[in-house]
Amino acid sequence: MAIKKIGKQTVKFENPPYIVATATTVGPKEGEGPLKSYFDNILSDDLYGEDSWELAESKILRESVKRAIQKSDKNIVDMEYMLSGDLLNQLMSTSFAARDLGIPFFGLYGACSTMAESLSLGAMIIDGGYADYLVATTSSHFSSAERQYRFPLEHGNQRALTAQWTVTGSGAAILSTNGNGPKITHVTTGKVVDLGIKDVNNMGAAMAPSAVDTMIAHFQDTGFRPEKYDLIVTGDLGAIGKEITEEMVFDRGYNITKVYNDCGVLIFDNEAQDTHAGGSGCGCSACVFCGYIYKEMIKKNLNNVLLISTGALLSTTSAQQGQSIPGIAHAVTIVNG
Amino acid sequence: MAIKKIGKQTVKFENPPYIVATATTVGPKEGEGPLKSYFDNILSDDLYGEDSWELAESKILRESVKRAIQKSDKNIVDMEYMLSGDLLNQLMSTSFAARDLGIPFFGLYGACSTMAESLSLGAMIIDGGYADYLVATTSSHFSSAERQYRFPLEHGNQRALTAQWTVTGSGAAILSTNGNGPKITHVTTGKVVDLGIKDVNNMGAAMAPSAVDTMIAHFQDTGFRPEKYDLIVTGDLGAIGKEITEEMVFDRGYNITKVYNDCGVLIFDNEAQDTHAGGSGCGCSACVFCGYIYKEMIKKNLNNVLLISTGALLSTTSAQQGQSIPGIAHAVTIVNG
Repeated sequence: MAIKKIGKQTVKFENPPYIVATATTVGPKEGEGPLKSYFDNILSDDLYGEDSWELAESKILRESVKRAIQKSDKNIVDMEYMLSGDLLNQLMSTSFAARDLGIPFFGLYGACSTMAESLSLGAMIIDGGYADYLVATTSSHFSSAERQYRFPLEHGNQRALTAQWTVTGSGAAILSTNGNGPKITHVTTGKVVDLGIKDVNNMGAAMAPSAVDTMIAHFQDTGFRPEKYDLIVTGDLGAIGKEITEEMVFDRGYNITKVYNDCGVLIFDNEAQDTHAGGSGCGCSACVFCGYIYKEMIKKNLNNVLLISTGALLSTTSAQQGQSIPGIAHAVTIVNG
Repeated sequence: MAIKKIGKQTVKFENPPYIVATATTVGPKEGEGPLKSYFDNILSDDLYGEDSWELAESKILRESVKRAIQKSDKNIVDMEYMLSGDLLNQLMSTSFAARDLGIPFFGLYGACSTMAESLSLGAMIIDGGYADYLVATTSSHFSSAERQYRFPLEHGNQRALTAQWTVTGSGAAILSTNGNGPKITHVTTGKVVDLGIKDVNNMGAAMAPSAVDTMIAHFQDTGFRPEKYDLIVTGDLGAIGKEITEEMVFDRGYNITKVYNDCGVLIFDNEAQDTHAGGSGCGCSACVFCGYIYKEMIKKNLNNVLLISTGALLSTTSAQQGQSIPGIAHAVTIVNG
């Protein structure tokens, strides 16, 4: 068996990579939400001075990366890899940001699981001795996502109560062999799980089974119980997916209620902000992790976190062809040293 | 500096992963081309019994993976990771294949550079001690790509002479710590390069500068000269991009003429098959590598190969917004032991 593998899906690092810095940029709505004090840069206009929402999203990602690098006291040229992806077709946000930054680049697509995917592969690259510094990042944008996946905003469509609100924002994390800060000790890589849900307005329900599958694999591989963590946080299941996850995990013998939350639930105040089932999008778990969670870990208010970003791997084509929605989730254990 | 890093962009493996098996599935047109004797499975119908070209592409990928696993004398459950991506929005081909296969999955997007991207990350995962067996794969499909990126096939549009023909096919490779076969000794990870080309019918010209950038970085990092290799092969630049690459590399002080070819040039007989500038698509370098090159390496007719898959990171949205075409290329050194 591979020397760093424990169980079927989990890696335990020999030299756990440090997350030496993070940075976030968010849109106006996110900047009015409950986590506003944790974000580094709150935009007053979601076009961010660009000609299109797609270019704005790319700038949001690029500026978050630059700010994270700055916080790490390094320079762009010190970054050996950038691991990133987004929701746009062909990763337009990421590809154009990677062009401007000029860092050797691996493009990822895991839908909203991308933050954990980039942290997972990034941690392997650092622990494996292939780099001393790298960037793991992702972005999403409400307006670019709505017009790509749903309807032109100008239609003013009514949204289903089970629908989620795509987060406008990006979070970037700098991983290193050296330094201080929270460390990535384990990663559990998810399988694609599809229980046959076809409702594109209920992504939380579609993704929940994959979150459960990865969480159970993580517990079984590591022997950890929920009590190991002071926060288990899924990516962007929203209120409905969160409830389903809690119940399904309970049925498998683990009670996570005391320590469990969801980034999509945390980022908006649904009552005041009318976001229905909660936040979603790659940027959701990226901003909540790189903003709120990371800063609370630095303050030692949180010390053992399991981040499980969750992705719905549908496309407009697959939905139009009547296919169900495959989900995936990757889990990353982050602990204070 | 990271222990396995040489130069700025290159990794040299301590325990070079073996490519223990490969498999390919191609469409009817590819099965009539010059490399037909190297493919494992040639379809008589590019729908492959499915209801849509997208589902057919997914089946092509899935079946290639299953065949490669079979050839490696292992089972699907022995595969610890699947690294894969494709050209379809949100990786529909890959995501649905990953669901059916149930292997822990990292989704990648590097446009047509995906085969080298999956081999690069796959080699790090094996050499790093995170897995004993994994699958690196990708696919493309002429008909699904045409309707997503260009025009409905029913339009019968005339194609520009600079245009390339998306390969219908998939190649899958099994990487392992154990076994026999060609080994991956180095990977050079590309940066995004964009010299401002906006002609979506001339992707070869758009991608050539990134192939050159990565090739030069590879030579500089490793100290290798073109003579080290008996084949340097770019992904899918086609006839025009190949010529540009040869000239640009020559201007940088390296003469690759004697050992250089391009997968997009090799896969079709342009005269007889009317493919204009040559083949393209993620499946192009995947099928040429997993078919022709791998089998010639097994026969010891080729012993030192530099595979440089090349990707054009545009989307229909970026093109419609008047943006130029960013390119990327990743290089992988494969040698007989």
